[in-house]
Amino acid sequence: MPRRRDKLSKPMSDLLKGNAVIGQSGGPTAVINQSLVAVIEAVAQYDAIDKLLGARHGVRGIVERRFVDLNGLDASLLEKVAQTPCAALGSTRDKPDEKYCRRIFQVLGRHNVRYFFYIGGNDSADAARIVNEMAAESNYELRVFHIPKTIDNDLRVTDHCPGYGSAARFVAAAIMGDDRDNASLPGVKVDVIMGRSAGWLAASSMLAREDDRDGPHLIYVPESPVSREKFVSDVLEVYGRLGRCLVAVSEGIMDEAGRSWAQTITETTERDSHGNIQLSGSGALGDYMANLVKAGVRQKLRIRSDTFGYLQRSFPGFASPTDQAEARLAGTKAVEYAMAGHVSGSVAFKRTGEGEHYGIECFRAELKDVAKEIKRLPAEYINDSGNGVNEAFRQYVAPLAGELPTIAKL
Amino acid sequence: MPRRRDKLSKPMSDLLKGNAVIGQSGGPTAVINQSLVAVIEAVAQYDAIDKLLGARHGVRGIVERRFVDLNGLDASLLEKVAQTPCAALGSTRDKPDEKYCRRIFQVLGRHNVRYFFYIGGNDSADAARIVNEMAAESNYELRVFHIPKTIDNDLRVTDHCPGYGSAARFVAAAIMGDDRDNASLPGVKVDVIMGRSAGWLAASSMLAREDDRDGPHLIYVPESPVSREKFVSDVLEVYGRLGRCLVAVSEGIMDEAGRSWAQTITETTERDSHGNIQLSGSGALGDYMANLVKAGVRQKLRIRSDTFGYLQRSFPGFASPTDQAEARLAGTKAVEYAMAGHVSGSVAFKRTGEGEHYGIECFRAELKDVAKEIKRLPAEYINDSGNGVNEAFRQYVAPLAGELPTIAKL
Repeated sequence: MPRRRDKLSKPMSDLLKGNAVIGQSGGPTAVINQSLVAVIEAVAQYDAIDKLLGARHGVRGIVERRFVDLNGLDASLLEKVAQTPCAALGSTRDKPDEKYCRRIFQVLGRHNVRYFFYIGGNDSADAARIVNEMAAESNYELRVFHIPKTIDNDLRVTDHCPGYGSAARFVAAAIMGDDRDNASLPGVKVDVIMGRSAGWLAASSMLAREDDRDGPHLIYVPESPVSREKFVSDVLEVYGRLGRCLVAVSEGIMDEAGRSWAQTITETTERDSHGNIQLSGSGALGDYMANLVKAGVRQKLRIRSDTFGYLQRSFPGFASPTDQAEARLAGTKAVEYAMAGHVSGSVAFKRTGEGEHYGIECFRAELKDVAKEIKRLPAEYINDSGNGVNEAFRQYVAPLAGELPTIAKL
Repeated sequence: MPRRRDKLSKPMSDLLKGNAVIGQSGGPTAVINQSLVAVIEAVAQYDAIDKLLGARHGVRGIVERRFVDLNGLDASLLEKVAQTPCAALGSTRDKPDEKYCRRIFQVLGRHNVRYFFYIGGNDSADAARIVNEMAAESNYELRVFHIPKTIDNDLRVTDHCPGYGSAARFVAAAIMGDDRDNASLPGVKVDVIMGRSAGWLAASSMLAREDDRDGPHLIYVPESPVSREKFVSDVLEVYGRLGRCLVAVSEGIMDEAGRSWAQTITETTERDSHGNIQLSGSGALGDYMANLVKAGVRQKLRIRSDTFGYLQRSFPGFASPTDQAEARLAGTKAVEYAMAGHVSGSVAFKRTGEGEHYGIECFRAELKDVAKEIKRLPAEYINDSGNGVNEAFRQYVAPLAGELPTIAKL
């Protein structure tokens, strides 16, 4: 294993010896493998870690003992894996409870695993927290580190999450293109963007706007409830002014009663229909909103909807370079924190500058502060009408998404 | 107008003198402005053409006399416009009949327009054909050239259409990413791809496949009808073998009775539902197919669908370089044919080499041979099971889509 020759010369006696496990969890991102490769490369620097095992499909792979040997892999293969979207080890939707975590802990112990790295969202941080507590109770020395990952950008403590910038770049570019489409063939267009509980990703569509006539003309996020009447009247106001209207809406849009539009649509349809027809699939919210506008106008308008779907998290060759670098850094830092003797934590980012001076530094957050609950889009970023986001948000998101494609008009 | 200084020195007496009009029509593509900019640049080389007018929203802009002056534009702006997806002049869905064409012809005459360039699909070629015939009948000297454009790749005569390669590149990349997503979180995924009458674009998804385990595992095109039973059994066969299944389906998929699935879904739903609920929106076909699989299995599977929608034709910053260059060439050639004294035609491509030796040359096709009817995916490209395309098709499409993003597996 030639990669291990130049290991750090820190006295081995200082370091906890044993094996390491890494897993990936939750919905994929375009940069989740950057963090994986960072851990593979960083771990190889430490003799104290004997073997690095990759758990297939996250915690499920641990309890089922489906491991892959991650030692001695070719550097150029690793670089290609880092560029590849979605979990190279496989992911899982399992959210381990106490009993499940007990099984994880037992398998880790049997394999003399002393370092557990878990790339994921808030649920993964919670699983890491429980496993960490079990280790402490059992006096089993274990380092447990969570490496944040989510296109939803909804983790607490950190300024932003690896995975978000690339999804934001995809969404912004998609809306830029679709806005040109809408200008070519004018009408009303509704684009549904991922984010069931937080509007961060839908909000990032605002980067598509270069001047006042550009879409998205309306942005709806779960944090700013809107009634059906208000939505239709917003659309008609924009249409009356510009002759077209592009709407970016979070799939988690809420109504004035605090209910999710998607949930209401599903229930209503199930009551109304016979047999197995359901209006609860991928395109249902967008189609519903398009139909609302259709029902609200007398003239014949061109009204369409698209639901961006999994492309937002999986599209290859279009990641934000900033996001790629930060996801890589997050993985490296997790290993550094563990080797520095910290018992557990989650890697978090602090912003050190804005605009051209954008930068971050990393710090170690406590697992309990990242686990379970989420961080929603703050009210300070939402406009007064509740149908868009402001320039302060542009400052926040622009450096994360990075450079966008060229768009010019005649 | 500094751009006009280096005009060609061909004797002006040889050339028909007057103004020129250019318009864009139909669904946008990522490279439709490459052809537009080519015409703007090429026309500027000829003193015989006094003014180049851009018709806003195609033929509609002509009959409404909504023109924009395209002379003396800055070269760097033009280059940016060429990179921008969707019709920079605006597009139209109008399909002119004889009466409409009469109005077009009258407006062209009043503006002393002697050169009419129209970028579009088969309907645009037909409008150009009718206008050309009217000019001939009236002894009004007019050059009418159609510049092909469609993501559907369904124009006759030409080997392929500008716009298709970029859409194919987007679809192939999207499927590559979504296949990694599907491998991360295994299940059944249905991706609906544009193409109501021809399967060229859905077929291009096959470029995502690097080895036998890669998706798309099944590809359905309108040219190869499939029953609901066959579809479900195909999916279950793949799922049983690989533990997952990624399906790429053309929105124009047909059943064994020769009926469009989408049409049947719309009619069935309208019969079954009450009030204004319709299963006829953007996501309906994908949701319907996902529900078919759900109904066909006993175990609990992860089954999802996405409909790629307008991103396929409008996504910026991801065009195929080959497609960009060819769309540019098509515009240049249209002007050259017109200035060489040809009265009318459509620019067509002939392939001069395959694989590494891929290349094209242009030739002038007759408008009547391109107008109205379309070219469907030939049976020779479809596999024996009717649920995929073969390596011969890969040879055809690979050079058009160009290089694809890096994907690597552990």
